[in-house]
Amino acid sequence: MLRTHTCGELRLADINKTVTLCGWVQKNRDKGGLTFVDLRDRYGLTQLIAQEGVTPTDAQEMMRKLGREFVIKATGKVIERTAKNPNLPTGEIEILVESLEILNAAKTTPFIIEDETDGGDDLRMEYRYLDLRRNIVRKNLELRHQVARATRQYLDNQAFIEVETPVLIKSTPEGARDFVVPSRLNQGEFYALPQSPQTFKQILMVSGFDRYYQIVKCFRDEDLRADRQPEFTQIDCEMSFITQEDILNTFEGLIRYLFKEVKAVDLPELPRMRYDDAMRLYGSDKPDTRFEMQFCPLTPEGGSEDLVKGRGFPVFDSAELVVGICAKGCSEYTRKQLDELTDFVKRPQIGAKGLVYVRYNLDGSLKSSVDKFYSEEDLKKWAERFNAQPGDLMLILSGETDKVRKQLNELRLEMGNRLGLRDKNTFSALWVIDFPLLEYSEEDGRWYAMHHPFTAPKPEDIAYLENIEDYGKIRANAYDMVINGTEVGGGSIRIYQRPLQEKMLGILGFEPENAKAQFGFLMDAFEFGAPPHGGIAFGFDRLCSIFGGADSIRDFIAFPKNNSGRDVMIKSPSPIDDKQLKELGIEVRKG
Amino acid sequence: MLRTHTCGELRLADINKTVTLCGWVQKNRDKGGLTFVDLRDRYGLTQLIAQEGVTPTDAQEMMRKLGREFVIKATGKVIERTAKNPNLPTGEIEILVESLEILNAAKTTPFIIEDETDGGDDLRMEYRYLDLRRNIVRKNLELRHQVARATRQYLDNQAFIEVETPVLIKSTPEGARDFVVPSRLNQGEFYALPQSPQTFKQILMVSGFDRYYQIVKCFRDEDLRADRQPEFTQIDCEMSFITQEDILNTFEGLIRYLFKEVKAVDLPELPRMRYDDAMRLYGSDKPDTRFEMQFCPLTPEGGSEDLVKGRGFPVFDSAELVVGICAKGCSEYTRKQLDELTDFVKRPQIGAKGLVYVRYNLDGSLKSSVDKFYSEEDLKKWAERFNAQPGDLMLILSGETDKVRKQLNELRLEMGNRLGLRDKNTFSALWVIDFPLLEYSEEDGRWYAMHHPFTAPKPEDIAYLENIEDYGKIRANAYDMVINGTEVGGGSIRIYQRPLQEKMLGILGFEPENAKAQFGFLMDAFEFGAPPHGGIAFGFDRLCSIFGGADSIRDFIAFPKNNSGRDVMIKSPSPIDDKQLKELGIEVRKG
Repeated sequence: MLRTHTCGELRLADINKTVTLCGWVQKNRDKGGLTFVDLRDRYGLTQLIAQEGVTPTDAQEMMRKLGREFVIKATGKVIERTAKNPNLPTGEIEILVESLEILNAAKTTPFIIEDETDGGDDLRMEYRYLDLRRNIVRKNLELRHQVARATRQYLDNQAFIEVETPVLIKSTPEGARDFVVPSRLNQGEFYALPQSPQTFKQILMVSGFDRYYQIVKCFRDEDLRADRQPEFTQIDCEMSFITQEDILNTFEGLIRYLFKEVKAVDLPELPRMRYDDAMRLYGSDKPDTRFEMQFCPLTPEGGSEDLVKGRGFPVFDSAELVVGICAKGCSEYTRKQLDELTDFVKRPQIGAKGLVYVRYNLDGSLKSSVDKFYSEEDLKKWAERFNAQPGDLMLILSGETDKVRKQLNELRLEMGNRLGLRDKNTFSALWVIDFPLLEYSEEDGRWYAMHHPFTAPKPEDIAYLENIEDYGKIRANAYDMVINGTEVGGGSIRIYQRPLQEKMLGILGFEPENAKAQFGFLMDAFEFGAPPHGGIAFGFDRLCSIFGGADSIRDFIAFPKNNSGRDVMIKSPSPIDDKQLKELGIEVRKG
Repeated sequence: MLRTHTCGELRLADINKTVTLCGWVQKNRDKGGLTFVDLRDRYGLTQLIAQEGVTPTDAQEMMRKLGREFVIKATGKVIERTAKNPNLPTGEIEILVESLEILNAAKTTPFIIEDETDGGDDLRMEYRYLDLRRNIVRKNLELRHQVARATRQYLDNQAFIEVETPVLIKSTPEGARDFVVPSRLNQGEFYALPQSPQTFKQILMVSGFDRYYQIVKCFRDEDLRADRQPEFTQIDCEMSFITQEDILNTFEGLIRYLFKEVKAVDLPELPRMRYDDAMRLYGSDKPDTRFEMQFCPLTPEGGSEDLVKGRGFPVFDSAELVVGICAKGCSEYTRKQLDELTDFVKRPQIGAKGLVYVRYNLDGSLKSSVDKFYSEEDLKKWAERFNAQPGDLMLILSGETDKVRKQLNELRLEMGNRLGLRDKNTFSALWVIDFPLLEYSEEDGRWYAMHHPFTAPKPEDIAYLENIEDYGKIRANAYDMVINGTEVGGGSIRIYQRPLQEKMLGILGFEPENAKAQFGFLMDAFEFGAPPHGGIAFGFDRLCSIFGGADSIRDFIAFPKNNSGRDVMIKSPSPIDDKQLKELGIEVRKG
């Protein structure tokens, strides 16, 4: 080793040792007779000091001239600092330099290597190697490593076996777009990169592997939105001879283990919420349960009385659903604040026509934006249903059920933000269960698998498969794990019998020969002794960002791509030469 | 769980428990009043028994009719066997069945699911899910998991951090062919799949990650030979502020840890052999050191006297090198055996013109195939040089140095096989060091990097870079780990300064603008404070096959491709439809 110690390990106990450190110059200061250098490596920061008359002149001279980010090797004696730095683990000591070597010089970096940098996103991506030097970015990747380690520990201890599935697989028209790879040895044919190892992990269950996992790269050629990456990582798992209950328990165990190991947080047992309830109470299948603020309907629901119809307010009279939330302690919101909320729900992305509010004033009086139609007595009844107290503000939307729920979900999250109820260091996790098996696309005029084509219907709902009118009623043994309003994982119990799988693919619009070409191997496998099985996959990048208390997954990926799918550091993708194209038997389409 | 226990865990201590097992029917036997079923899962085999008058008739009837590979669930009482099976961990007990459920029936499998199967390679690959049920195949993948776990344990404990590098990267014309991925969002441009994360791991060193590893898929679009896979897995590592010595020690530590953990084998310290010595003594840079049989030259080498020239034997007189091996105890090889060896070295793949032998008979006399030219006294001197004893056989080749060494290497390995010196359960590991930096290709009339373009020359040889005549003399700080004659890993100390990297790329034939387009980001990075660094990569599939005592890597990969790069189970690669091609902006070349 070029060094005897790292820049993070020397303490008072090391006083008088002669040591050699290597690292990057964080900064240097020249105070006349004394020259200081903060030397940085992955492990920490140590102060070097040169003293006139003690340190050899050439070494001190060299220290004076060091630029930021120079890579140096310094040898000297560990001494006690006079001015100790309690914020630094090495802050009680410094190194009195005896000799110094510049291992590599550095040009001025295009942005400052500090937690607070002056570099914009594009610059930081182009010089990702410099961005990764910043402690806060590096710590994200260290966290990622920790989460991966703890995941493997837990699953290994539960007798899961990690099996690598292939990256060069077969393209499937179902679902998102595949990235494809032209085959040189089989011209005119293509491999596809896996969107997930779904069929392979099921095959492993048919093979008797019993418990499989893999931390694995997956690929989706989708139009990129903010925070979506063409390549991403999954914790992919599958188990045999289990029920849904076993999977929920096993992976609730995983997530609680991770929180304990990585964050030292005792996550409480995960509540389970039916999909229907999540939609009814939160307007979302991934409710943020860090805060309550559940939906309260004013139109009849589950036996409750109607409180709005027939008072002459056409908006409510024509609405399928009138529903609101109670914002605690917001009765004194200003006109401006209320206008902001109205503008918020009327934004095209949300699409509400308007917002009705009721102030439950501290003096007990009620004041609404619909006083023309509703008496204070009416409003009192609303307040009761909302469980509102004096000081609260009720916010109400109305319209077609599915739409209004989505809109109110957005408003609820906005209010959560405004009220500081969505602290990134508070964690609320739950299971959402009993998802519908199928969802209808008005646009395409056909049914899609809500999870994927291999998900099993609940046994008690199987009869509904016989009648297209009943498709919407079929529930699946499918489940999502939600943390802080983000779906971190999802899975299902799978079909393991050929006839049911064939029927399901038929419902999803596969012609029989097409189903056979795509998934024939899996259906064949089901005929040779397939066990009941099910599984789950976690979005690993997202999980890490939640552990890191961050919104973006990008900072938890060492070399992310930008929103156009480009790696601007290595300048990829890029054209390839004609010889290569010719060998692959393809050409680039003109125009 | 559908079961209370696995098929591998019940023992005498469990007698009288009522248990439920799930698994596959290995076989059933009907002995009149008694019916037996061997039930198999990943964890083991347990015998089920049904007894007339005790087991319900329907359950026994069902048991009689079970086919091989049916998936069943059986409940019953653990009882002590009368005829115990000492070869089975569960062999002291059996389950007296009370009820039975068929979870899934199975068709007759196309080959028998036993260690010794009747299925040929092609059939086993098509039905890989059945092949994977065979204990010996599954155990290979369990071994692979164990090796991966132990690798991570060791490296985690040494402060290495696992960082995922991207799969969608940039195509480079240097080296083997890339697999490419057309970009839909950037039409006419392509990503490439990485042949190794080489540049990314160096970038991570520039970023200060200090110690990196990754167990990672890599891709090479080469013409497939037996036992070469288009996608393969590496243990990829890099370290900063180190010398070659540190890397050798760290990864010698890894391999010894793996042998200890996985095989309970105490691997001795790894000897180090210079490349030149390996070529001189074994004719190979990956010598199989499980057995000695080193090369003995009869022409002068390192000060030794010539023992063959000028005796009128034109073959030796005209040879640059005359060199042989001593096969202990083979003096009584028959004429037929010697002819076989002669035919072996004359095969076109080896290409020797002939083989000279000398028998050192047990009576002390010497008899050679060149008695016409060499007296017994001459042969005595040869025997001395070969350190041969009565009873030994000397086998001698001659010709141009490089060629004859390669030929004799093949003959040595063949003799090792014939003499049983290459036991798969004996392990001999070593480092080969001091590789040449560059090798000349007569065919292309240019110099190539022997390792890769980022390998640093030895500091003491850097001056040779100034003169093309001296290129062949330059040694690199490059090293391979060799086990049992197989290169399992290799690496080097890297260049970390822009001028030297530019010079190296120039020597390798890169035009400056081309070098910049391909590796500009890395050379730029070198200017912002790059530390001295180096690393290594192990072929993980190969390493697992060595641990498993197998020749082929294919059985250590869950879903390998065949020699045409096809996955015959999923039938990939395959054509994709025109819509997909159009979206990607490419077309398949006609004809």
